[in-house]
Amino acid sequence: MKVPIMKNVLAANEVIAEELRTWFESTGIFVVNLLGSPGAGKTTLIEQTLERAGDRLRIGVIEGDIATSLDAERIARHGAPVIQINTGGACHLDAAMVRNALGQLEVSYLDILMIENVGNLICPAQFDLGESTKVAICSLPEGADKVLKYPAIFSAVSAVVLNKLDLLEHVDFNRINFKLSLAELNPSARLMELSCVTGDNLEEWLEWLNEGVYKAKQQYPRGGESRSPA
Amino acid sequence: MKVPIMKNVLAANEVIAEELRTWFESTGIFVVNLLGSPGAGKTTLIEQTLERAGDRLRIGVIEGDIATSLDAERIARHGAPVIQINTGGACHLDAAMVRNALGQLEVSYLDILMIENVGNLICPAQFDLGESTKVAICSLPEGADKVLKYPAIFSAVSAVVLNKLDLLEHVDFNRINFKLSLAELNPSARLMELSCVTGDNLEEWLEWLNEGVYKAKQQYPRGGESRSPA
Repeated sequence: MKVPIMKNVLAANEVIAEELRTWFESTGIFVVNLLGSPGAGKTTLIEQTLERAGDRLRIGVIEGDIATSLDAERIARHGAPVIQINTGGACHLDAAMVRNALGQLEVSYLDILMIENVGNLICPAQFDLGESTKVAICSLPEGADKVLKYPAIFSAVSAVVLNKLDLLEHVDFNRINFKLSLAELNPSARLMELSCVTGDNLEEWLEWLNEGVYKAKQQYPRGGESRSPA
Repeated sequence: MKVPIMKNVLAANEVIAEELRTWFESTGIFVVNLLGSPGAGKTTLIEQTLERAGDRLRIGVIEGDIATSLDAERIARHGAPVIQINTGGACHLDAAMVRNALGQLEVSYLDILMIENVGNLICPAQFDLGESTKVAICSLPEGADKVLKYPAIFSAVSAVVLNKLDLLEHVDFNRINFKLSLAELNPSARLMELSCVTGDNLEEWLEWLNEGVYKAKQQYPRGGESRSPA
């Protein structure tokens, strides 16, 4: 019984996700669906991005959490427009939640919309949000076996951020094994090893974002549909 | 549509979980359902338990993962009986999976059955496995806000293991905030702060396990039903 029910839910999600994608593309916004375990550093990565690129890129944020507005409060301190979605128990964001959030967030003037998904390395992979691309963030203390053990997310993304490089000397993490398993599962995924604490190698992430913004604008120059689907 | 469907799934799970619970209780086994994020240290905690108590307690292990048998291989090296369940995508163990595993694992002679759930701080909370108790494991690098952000799991457990205490000087973690939020959400939960790397304070965990084994045997002295429901 479970599989067909899940398929219905996913099919309904896909309809709304495609509507969102059409609208995002028409406005030339680069939309990143950021996925990772609790505590991998999703919010900190967005904060660092705002600190370092917030003056030249217009960045909006949707924060997905089961409960609390802690993450949205952190983002708001950086002056960025942000909406907190509380799923009330649900383990992932879905396209309808994002569509509702767009009613409260003026996104058509943005360069980047960062959607921080619920902290979960499994379920969010299945739910398309109409994003331009998915990014996984994983951190050294989680261990180097995570690509092998959570293949759905790591095969769905175009980039993987390996965070907390500052802890390399303090944890048991085999970077070669991590790289090899990612290269085997998803050879086209771009791997960026960095530290949101020390700032090491954040330039690579910012450049990758810039490229995404550039491509989104090239493909879909602003001036298409301007009405949000929300 | 989603809520009633979910209720049906949970109700069906509850029937099997109660069947398992009756059987576990009749055999006097202490069954721990271990919950935590990917990389929190679930497998390492079980390995340390086997190393330090495996000579005086008979411990069996069920390993839940989406993919791979990496964790079961780690456990098997310690000489403990272990079964790997691969959920094939599902984000949690359910009671039917555990019942099936019991067909391949001789548990009636055990003192403790450790069930390591899928790495996920959300979904496993909803699925009763017939266990004696649920334990959450969380680690310092994940951040001190996890109790507030993932309340379902932290309110469902009788104990919380705060792991990776060895990283205290290297990460930003407010222990007081963590303790206060847990005390508010779930005042009866026993908090054990330890390090599976250095072994610091593992005695407290082992004593807690011993108490559980003692109570399970007192309440349900061996000699009840001996036929596994599997």
